[in-house]
Amino acid sequence: MTKTNPGNFFEDFRVGQEIRHATPRTVTAGDAAVYQALHGSRLPMHSSDRFAQSVGLPAAPIDDLLAFHVVFGKTVPDVSLNAVANLGYAGCRFGVPVYPEDTLSTTSTVIGQRELSNGKAGVVYVHSVGVNQRDETVLDYKRWVMVRKGDTSAPTPDPVVPELPDSVPVEDLLVPEGLDLSAYDYGLAGSPHRWDEYQVGERIDHVDGMTIEEAEHMMATRLYQNTARVHFNQHVEKDGRFGRRIIYGGHIISLARAISFNGLANAFRVAAINGGSHVAPTFAGDTVYAWSEVLDTAEVPGRRDVGAVRLRTVATKDCGCADFPYKDGEGKYHPAVVLDLDYTVLMPR
Amino acid sequence: MTKTNPGNFFEDFRVGQEIRHATPRTVTAGDAAVYQALHGSRLPMHSSDRFAQSVGLPAAPIDDLLAFHVVFGKTVPDVSLNAVANLGYAGCRFGVPVYPEDTLSTTSTVIGQRELSNGKAGVVYVHSVGVNQRDETVLDYKRWVMVRKGDTSAPTPDPVVPELPDSVPVEDLLVPEGLDLSAYDYGLAGSPHRWDEYQVGERIDHVDGMTIEEAEHMMATRLYQNTARVHFNQHVEKDGRFGRRIIYGGHIISLARAISFNGLANAFRVAAINGGSHVAPTFAGDTVYAWSEVLDTAEVPGRRDVGAVRLRTVATKDCGCADFPYKDGEGKYHPAVVLDLDYTVLMPR
Amino acid sequence: MTKTNPGNFFEDFRVGQEIRHATPRTVTAGDAAVYQALHGSRLPMHSSDRFAQSVGLPAAPIDDLLAFHVVFGKTVPDVSLNAVANLGYAGCRFGVPVYPEDTLSTTSTVIGQRELSNGKAGVVYVHSVGVNQRDETVLDYKRWVMVRKGDTSAPTPDPVVPELPDSVPVEDLLVPEGLDLSAYDYGLAGSPHRWDEYQVGERIDHVDGMTIEEAEHMMATRLYQNTARVHFNQHVEKDGRFGRRIIYGGHIISLARAISFNGLANAFRVAAINGGSHVAPTFAGDTVYAWSEVLDTAEVPGRRDVGAVRLRTVATKDCGCADFPYKDGEGKYHPAVVLDLDYTVLMPR
Repeated sequence: MTKTNPGNFFEDFRVGQEIRHATPRTVTAGDAAVYQALHGSRLPMHSSDRFAQSVGLPAAPIDDLLAFHVVFGKTVPDVSLNAVANLGYAGCRFGVPVYPEDTLSTTSTVIGQRELSNGKAGVVYVHSVGVNQRDETVLDYKRWVMVRKGDTSAPTPDPVVPELPDSVPVEDLLVPEGLDLSAYDYGLAGSPHRWDEYQVGERIDHVDGMTIEEAEHMMATRLYQNTARVHFNQHVEKDGRFGRRIIYGGHIISLARAISFNGLANAFRVAAINGGSHVAPTFAGDTVYAWSEVLDTAEVPGRRDVGAVRLRTVATKDCGCADFPYKDGEGKYHPAVVLDLDYTVLMPR
Repeated sequence: MTKTNPGNFFEDFRVGQEIRHATPRTVTAGDAAVYQALHGSRLPMHSSDRFAQSVGLPAAPIDDLLAFHVVFGKTVPDVSLNAVANLGYAGCRFGVPVYPEDTLSTTSTVIGQRELSNGKAGVVYVHSVGVNQRDETVLDYKRWVMVRKGDTSAPTPDPVVPELPDSVPVEDLLVPEGLDLSAYDYGLAGSPHRWDEYQVGERIDHVDGMTIEEAEHMMATRLYQNTARVHFNQHVEKDGRFGRRIIYGGHIISLARAISFNGLANAFRVAAINGGSHVAPTFAGDTVYAWSEVLDTAEVPGRRDVGAVRLRTVATKDCGCADFPYKDGEGKYHPAVVLDLDYTVLMPR
Repeated sequence: MTKTNPGNFFEDFRVGQEIRHATPRTVTAGDAAVYQALHGSRLPMHSSDRFAQSVGLPAAPIDDLLAFHVVFGKTVPDVSLNAVANLGYAGCRFGVPVYPEDTLSTTSTVIGQRELSNGKAGVVYVHSVGVNQRDETVLDYKRWVMVRKGDTSAPTPDPVVPELPDSVPVEDLLVPEGLDLSAYDYGLAGSPHRWDEYQVGERIDHVDGMTIEEAEHMMATRLYQNTARVHFNQHVEKDGRFGRRIIYGGHIISLARAISFNGLANAFRVAAINGGSHVAPTFAGDTVYAWSEVLDTAEVPGRRDVGAVRLRTVATKDCGCADFPYKDGEGKYHPAVVLDLDYTVLMPR
């Protein structure tokens, strides 16, 4: 018997199963610094303890997406090591902020399962929850992936397809405890534009482009202990579908978020990811650009100091976004688009 | 109206104007580690809390140049996003040491302004001050840049050209409070050579060369939240003047400082930058070397344990420095020279 | 007289000489994060303070090999700057765990010396000891290197060849004080396989491969303040034996250790390195794989919760390890092998 972990195949999952993922992780100021060096975010809430304290937090939390990647990374060895495709996310809600020295761990519950008609693979739906050392939820999302069968003669389970929310309702968004934006300093934040100024339908070209190097995306992905093999092994990938290592989709999300500072400087917190699609793979040498459209704005119940903005951020490669490249008349993506992300941020008002 | 920051153009500045730069930044041991990995400094003062404590400091301060880059980086979006050229520095004085957990922020005052005769751009002079969370000055310098006009029909301001010091006088150098070098351990520092041994006119080849990768200079520059576009976007730069991303000049200063350990191991603190010139751009793949000349030595008023050494450090690319490449008889730089830096260090005596 | 450090030549060493190496180093959570990003280890003992505390440690110690590299790096400027070849290690014993904020320093004693018959170089044997700020030993090893003579007319010293142990006896392995594995959580650790299940002669293919970039190995090596020139200077190395920068052998050890998680997830501590050989150099672009053989298993005297496993881990480049590539019938290494490491780990039982 081998002692290496072959990952789970489609037939290894059953609805209701709980998976306690390995490798709890204490995140530190070191992780925040490596993340900073790799993406270049300028959000003051994550850059300055003093700024965070001026709005009622105990210290600067780590970047919301760093927390996402750490929580997500733990699920890879159990959920998606034998994945053929990552099909989607839904209902991703960010919970209590994560501070340096917090220890994160993740559990998943299988909430759906549907074998393909060809009998070679199936779709697995999981609900994953990341918690800190006080068992407070820091992230909570549903994800579905297509997973190979290891034994194609394994019996076909009864199909269970869970209901998946289109978006996270504004009532479900979590505003960090103690947050009080009355003294939010727009000057130090780098932009005067507050919640009230963002209009539904408004589009923003984030202007800047960032070229990705192999060392960078691999360092990011290892930081998250994400073990998906396609990101790291050129010796195998040179003979693969693209001839190249494929960049972890989450790295593009992080770059798009960092780039979007230019136009969304006061979007101080990602509160939810409603859904998203990695439209095309990216590779080292690609230059990532991004633009955003305001899909909706909403008051946050009970708050006069903070509002929610639902955004679509589109990332492209090797294509500036002054013309807002997206889909053509038939709904087909512009060939430069690599990411189509629907998420909700909090902003001061 | 766009919500992206277009940066300031020449006509947006006026003498006397105060600019409070965005993104306060808490520097951490994480930043110090990333900086260490990128440059490889061996100065014990920044490597070991115990060493720093043995000479009276509370802990190991972060590298002086890391503090410089963080303070400087904040000014880029406001001062030099539309710069045509960085023309010079003067009177750069390092203040109180920066320790992990300190929060840095920067303000600038416009101290001069002179439009070019062609009416398309002008020189802007700023005085920038970086402070910590106790409002103590950590860095203080003057800088002038040539900035494009956004609207060439904007009126020409009265020219104001400030007086700029040739150097920082030794009386103005700050010796960190509490510092007492009587127990300075030359063995742990890696070299027996103290202040008294450095002679005016002495030249030192620092021997080692360091080849730069794209991932490295971009990580460094993002760590400092320096947003100058030429460093990050190969998709645009491939059609630019050099066909390549241009490395942030400060990265070369940091490499030269790290390389200069071999010959200047006891130069434990950069006290001032008197002036400097980025003679030529550098690119990924270049190998940086450095040599130094002692321009002056001075006693520090009231101190028997510490002395000042004024240095010229010259960095080259793809050219060893055994022959001290610098300028020819007509004052033209040797083609390999990329940096000519005039600065003052403190050394134990 | 030059102020640069030329390193020691063969004739500069004498048996009995003590070398106090420079640059004490406070290791931090920042160093741990950079190390994590560069190697991708998933060992919970080094990832999670909570996990480490659940087995009796005060916090997550830094990776054993990060401690090794920091201790070792300090010896390079004094011992191996003029080395022609690194010949071997022996009797390498890991002492007390290293925690963030510990300050490490290293001293070496010359324990042997033997000039080559050609009179141009000689073998130097050193015993190096790394300690923390409480003078507790964190690492202790013997190493021998071939070092050039600076002056070939220098007299030939009497040859002294020390006895070198084949392995570190199990009685000499240090189990960290306070460690109690009774509550070791195999689920969070990511594998159910405990000490009792590993059989002498068992071979494990660690499956995964990791491609190395120039930026990565240079960042790692600078993090350790290892100054060996062949790793950093492409301008010189392009004309060298391989035309390339040579990767620090320790980087391969760290990658092999990280890759070996898949099959050795509960090998929570490297207790000893019995010996090892860098069989062939590696270069950027190489993809490293690894496999391991169980050489021995032993009870740890006085412990029911922890056992020792002696392993041979073989790393290859650009060659998967499903067939366990090693040596042919004549004892010649398979051409893909780059590392042959004999070491001892601790595992829960």
